[in-house]
Amino acid sequence: MPKSDTNSVGLVTPQILDIDEPLSLACGRVLPRYQLIYETYGQLNADASNAVLICHALSGTHHAAGFHSESDRKPGWWDHYIGPGKPIDTRRFFVVAVNNLGGCAGSTGPTSINPDTGKPWGPDFPTLRVRDWVHSQAKLGESLGIHTWAAVVGGSLGGMQAMRWALEYPDRVRHCVVIASAMKLTAQNIAFNETARNAIMSDPNFCDGDYLAHHTSPKNGLATARMIGHITYMSGDGLGEKFGRALRTGSFAQGSDELVEFQVQSYLRYQGDVFSDNFDANTYVLMTRALDYFDLAREYHDDPVAAFAHASARFLVVSFTTDWRFSPERSREIAHALMAANKSVCYAEIESNFGHDAFLLPNPRYEQVFRNFMDTIDTEPRT
Amino acid sequence: MPKSDTNSVGLVTPQILDIDEPLSLACGRVLPRYQLIYETYGQLNADASNAVLICHALSGTHHAAGFHSESDRKPGWWDHYIGPGKPIDTRRFFVVAVNNLGGCAGSTGPTSINPDTGKPWGPDFPTLRVRDWVHSQAKLGESLGIHTWAAVVGGSLGGMQAMRWALEYPDRVRHCVVIASAMKLTAQNIAFNETARNAIMSDPNFCDGDYLAHHTSPKNGLATARMIGHITYMSGDGLGEKFGRALRTGSFAQGSDELVEFQVQSYLRYQGDVFSDNFDANTYVLMTRALDYFDLAREYHDDPVAAFAHASARFLVVSFTTDWRFSPERSREIAHALMAANKSVCYAEIESNFGHDAFLLPNPRYEQVFRNFMDTIDTEPRT
Repeated sequence: MPKSDTNSVGLVTPQILDIDEPLSLACGRVLPRYQLIYETYGQLNADASNAVLICHALSGTHHAAGFHSESDRKPGWWDHYIGPGKPIDTRRFFVVAVNNLGGCAGSTGPTSINPDTGKPWGPDFPTLRVRDWVHSQAKLGESLGIHTWAAVVGGSLGGMQAMRWALEYPDRVRHCVVIASAMKLTAQNIAFNETARNAIMSDPNFCDGDYLAHHTSPKNGLATARMIGHITYMSGDGLGEKFGRALRTGSFAQGSDELVEFQVQSYLRYQGDVFSDNFDANTYVLMTRALDYFDLAREYHDDPVAAFAHASARFLVVSFTTDWRFSPERSREIAHALMAANKSVCYAEIESNFGHDAFLLPNPRYEQVFRNFMDTIDTEPRT
Repeated sequence: MPKSDTNSVGLVTPQILDIDEPLSLACGRVLPRYQLIYETYGQLNADASNAVLICHALSGTHHAAGFHSESDRKPGWWDHYIGPGKPIDTRRFFVVAVNNLGGCAGSTGPTSINPDTGKPWGPDFPTLRVRDWVHSQAKLGESLGIHTWAAVVGGSLGGMQAMRWALEYPDRVRHCVVIASAMKLTAQNIAFNETARNAIMSDPNFCDGDYLAHHTSPKNGLATARMIGHITYMSGDGLGEKFGRALRTGSFAQGSDELVEFQVQSYLRYQGDVFSDNFDANTYVLMTRALDYFDLAREYHDDPVAAFAHASARFLVVSFTTDWRFSPERSREIAHALMAANKSVCYAEIESNFGHDAFLLPNPRYEQVFRNFMDTIDTEPRT
């Protein structure tokens, strides 16, 4: 943990909530009980009116800010935006970040033991939809004494959760921050997810999802899946600026028989390897399916305006110019539907060269927009 | 073969050329002898001045037009643009289409027998660069009595060959048609190719490229590679219009436990399976490396203007608006360098919704531009 970081939330300790109440899932199955791992930053105020829920994206976790130990070198995944003096200011807000159900960072998921069999769930873990996460997050909030969130905030798949929150529990979300997200995925996005899943599921070590029972892991497939994700979450220009055609090994000299390797190649393979050492394949399949299946307005006759008519939150919608997997067009659709539904919405399209990853990265304009919106949120207890 | 197709070249028979002369490759190795499979359409004129060379892309073959049998249902890959009355008009031109060295459709490649070992070359087949293809194509031309091509034509990787022809043999190329191509790949393009190679090479059945000796094939990896290619050669809008979020099986009804499958998923998997039944993995690796390695101006001090100063051909450069792997920007760079080098160049940016695949597909404006350019080529023998 860098000593100099005075606006860090500092050392944090994950907590675990065991929920013994059954959770009825959208797929019709029921989880009899489950566990959620989460972190909190800041202090809940007297009437619990300053709580902010952070919803994570595909490969995120509950570790959104701070450090787990003094020797930790990397902070949580959204540390730049959560902390004292940061856009989600922990001097004012009580922040809750949770690992989603189906995840592999401590919440009940495919690597957990299925109480009915005494063995890991593996591929038998139920297919989840975004609304299932919202319902389980509501239980977590209740356990913390939070009825109404000052804000529900998320990027990408996290933004889908934030929107679903605003429709499922309109009286329990005062503000909704939807960053680099979409009301439903495009065919291209589904196609990339399918290719990633295909890489995983066709890896012989996937064993139809039962790799834990076979004491193995579809590492190669997971690495390929991550490489696809990594490329497509960056912009073409961003990749070009970072790597260009710089070589790592070899030479193009005539007569040279050695293989040439570009830096971008070894970087990508390294990213794939690191990820496949640390992520569960069934969780990857489950999370990408939840992304594909999400369709905000499906049960509102495919009319986003009719859907958002149910919301009562104030919205901030943010997109990034070079994000081509969740393009600004998708965010504009959200903003337009909210306006047509007569809802309060701020929309900002942020210049960035970092593609979809921009929602995680420092950017002064993004910080300003985010901070300004969060600053409008009243966190004084009503006595 | 559809009976009604009066502007088809009709039935065609591939021919094989055995070249006993050694070919010195850019990598420093020497192929002692090799074989090229090719097709021809139309008649060579008296002074061999009407010959057009077709250079194929990553997964192309020598079968560019016409049908191999009466029962053949699909014509060659560029049938729409080669034939009587078509842009490359076989009433005027003698068209030569060749499977590149290293290919898997009949020319010497990784599946061929290495005379030194009596076994398939497999992964020991030399790494090739675009210039090696150009040199071998020159030998094919000579064997047919063609010293100078009326035009060398290619899309994508084929366009790279056409440009290299214009620099390697400036007095043997009168016209050069470069479609949906680039002077060098971007980092993003290299990254996609690397991910595809990674999928292939991490498939346990790849056996370090020796899969033929092990009587197997890295089909799963090759299918994933093709899926990546397929998505990225289409435009996002094109995929959206073709598939949207239409379902093939399943339902989103609450309480339904069955898996939902989108049409785009099964389509992609089908494309991957068909490809992996018919293409050689080592060839895929070799072809994508040639793409990555190509850098038109590398030995001209990285100055494309200095490179093109060596050309004497007239150029047609074509790009497609939604092609994001070989974007119009890349083609404009070619056109600008040619203009700066005082060369004759026509440049057309064609509206299309079909991404990179547009260069293979019907498009009235593209046909018109292509035809107009080809019509300017003098094919009258000089007596």
